Amino acid sequence: MATPAMIPDRRLFGPGPSNPYPEATAGLGLPLLGHLDPAFLAIMDETCAMLRTVWGTDNARTLPLSATGSAGMEAAFVNTVGAGDVAVIAVNGLFGERMCDVAARCGAQVVRVDHEWGQPIDPQRVAEAHPSPKVIAAVHAETSTGVRSDIAALGALKGDALLITDAVTSIAGIELRADDWGVDVGYAGTQKCLGVAPGLAPFTINDRAFERRIEHPQSWYLDLGLLGGYVGEASQKHGGRTYHHTAPTAMVVSLHAALQRILAEGLDTVWARHAEAGELLQDGLQKLGLELFAAQGYRLPELTTVKVPDGVDSAAVRRELLDRYDIEIGAGAGAYASTVWRIGLMGHNARPDAALLILAALADILGR
Amino acid sequence: MATPAMIPDRRLFGPGPSNPYPEATAGLGLPLLGHLDPAFLAIMDETCAMLRTVWGTDNARTLPLSATGSAGMEAAFVNTVGAGDVAVIAVNGLFGERMCDVAARCGAQVVRVDHEWGQPIDPQRVAEAHPSPKVIAAVHAETSTGVRSDIAALGALKGDALLITDAVTSIAGIELRADDWGVDVGYAGTQKCLGVAPGLAPFTINDRAFERRIEHPQSWYLDLGLLGGYVGEASQKHGGRTYHHTAPTAMVVSLHAALQRILAEGLDTVWARHAEAGELLQDGLQKLGLELFAAQGYRLPELTTVKVPDGVDSAAVRRELLDRYDIEIGAGAGAYASTVWRIGLMGHNARPDAALLILAALADILGR
Repeated sequence: MATPAMIPDRRLFGPGPSNPYPEATAGLGLPLLGHLDPAFLAIMDETCAMLRTVWGTDNARTLPLSATGSAGMEAAFVNTVGAGDVAVIAVNGLFGERMCDVAARCGAQVVRVDHEWGQPIDPQRVAEAHPSPKVIAAVHAETSTGVRSDIAALGALKGDALLITDAVTSIAGIELRADDWGVDVGYAGTQKCLGVAPGLAPFTINDRAFERRIEHPQSWYLDLGLLGGYVGEASQKHGGRTYHHTAPTAMVVSLHAALQRILAEGLDTVWARHAEAGELLQDGLQKLGLELFAAQGYRLPELTTVKVPDGVDSAAVRRELLDRYDIEIGAGAGAYASTVWRIGLMGHNARPDAALLILAALADILGR
Repeated sequence: MATPAMIPDRRLFGPGPSNPYPEATAGLGLPLLGHLDPAFLAIMDETCAMLRTVWGTDNARTLPLSATGSAGMEAAFVNTVGAGDVAVIAVNGLFGERMCDVAARCGAQVVRVDHEWGQPIDPQRVAEAHPSPKVIAAVHAETSTGVRSDIAALGALKGDALLITDAVTSIAGIELRADDWGVDVGYAGTQKCLGVAPGLAPFTINDRAFERRIEHPQSWYLDLGLLGGYVGEASQKHGGRTYHHTAPTAMVVSLHAALQRILAEGLDTVWARHAEAGELLQDGLQKLGLELFAAQGYRLPELTTVKVPDGVDSAAVRRELLDRYDIEIGAGAGAYASTVWRIGLMGHNARPDAALLILAALADILGR
């Protein structure tokens, strides 16, 4: 039992978590602060302010929720839809599917708009799926397929509905402009392009959505009305903080450090770095004779999906990458579990040397 | 914006978080692992096994939930009570009150059994509050008042009901024997006597409760049926892991390290260390002429409540402790916010030198 485990030093080139920015790891080791310490509250406020920048929003209610990205999804629905509310959900991968499950558990009437996996969503078709939904929801960057969808186009067509957007795999990796695009509620994760360990869900909600929220949601933990008393500008406007739950202070300090590093580099530069690394990888994979899965023109640079060549054992290759080179890549999702690989170059891994390494390792193992 | 914050090095003598065990902090800095990495799954399995020891249970379904202790509370209710189910809840402080709120949001018919704050619960009165509740719930160690209640006595009287127990402030600090005491569902936090940063909720549920669970709970994130596919012995019995959400791997590695350290020291020794530090503190406070708040005979060693002397500004003393000595203690909870202090000596802080330091600092500031 008590033998110390040897922790291997992996290159995390799967769909997340990615290797954190060194600053984020260093942040975890700083002295722990209490969740009501003035020093921590200052860090929390700065963190919320920096999150606004990476979200592209001015929303006062922008904060890191104290759980992983999937809880961010749950927070989005639990605070906006209740029994009988219509939720139109665009599905072009696993995370759109999950939205349907989560919304249904809130009692919503789910109108599911299916798309082929590997293709982006069709904003027109989604917008026309129901005459008066309370919410329309879509995934910006589908982690299951490596596809980017046009959230701005959907925002332009949303009408009176609230637009919920999953930005788990897009935030701090590719262009994201929540306010300009008409996103009313957004959630993300820390463990991908933000370059922090998993454990927090950066979340944003605008006044329009907050005013139309479920006042007494079925989740106490994710009740934004209660959370607003503790974090975000809203809490300061109303003078003083209210204890809600014990915030995961070490994780917030780590996120703060990563955001400082990202903004010091410059968000445009960070996006360009992801684009460059992704292009290197995708070009290189095709030169190895491999076929990309996501539709051309909609490929995420930070998460590449590639078809497993005929006759190749997908799991055996992943295992060999791990055992021989300490490199993790991901299996495909859902029906594509054994026919697609998912290769992420996110956050600190969005660099040319990382692209070079995974290409060389795959070439070696595949004998190409 | 981008100026690095200076992080003060605090002594966290409040109601939690406490200063983590050094091993737990070191664990956060180890190379990050993916949530499906075989190396991580081995660590997760060992973590679950060690959690069984600190819970005093053989439950296969013992695992760290991916959120803080309050989400553990929500998981306990959301998986066991639905519309119309009767939940008898013992209330002798803030966390009993919170249970009522959380259970009501699940649609439960809440039968609240109130007790004076500062007193333990009366197991007989709680057990007799309703003839056939689905669940009975009580807090083992009330963080708001510093009181220990007799869970074993309640377990002996629970009849057919499921017993839910909040062990957030008791786990790894005082005697806790979930199986012997008849606890069916228990939840805890990492940031108190376990000596880990906040962010995980150690959770346990036995077969009896699992069989009577809500099959399709309103929370997707906390659905134990889905979670069982990823962690715990149950997942292994059924061969293979199912991805549910991305586990907060850094936090789990940190918890693993703390548990190894606790079990290396020996759980009995750790309990004795908490008892000794608490006794030193409580004796010392009384020698300073201060009056303890929690009822004699039911005082938690790990969390001491003490009345603010007449004429003393509670907040000013806390602020001076923080500014002058980098020492955090807690305000009182609820109606006792300005008339009680809460002083925790938990986990790594459960040591004689910590007791000595807080006593000396208080003596200085109070001029005693």
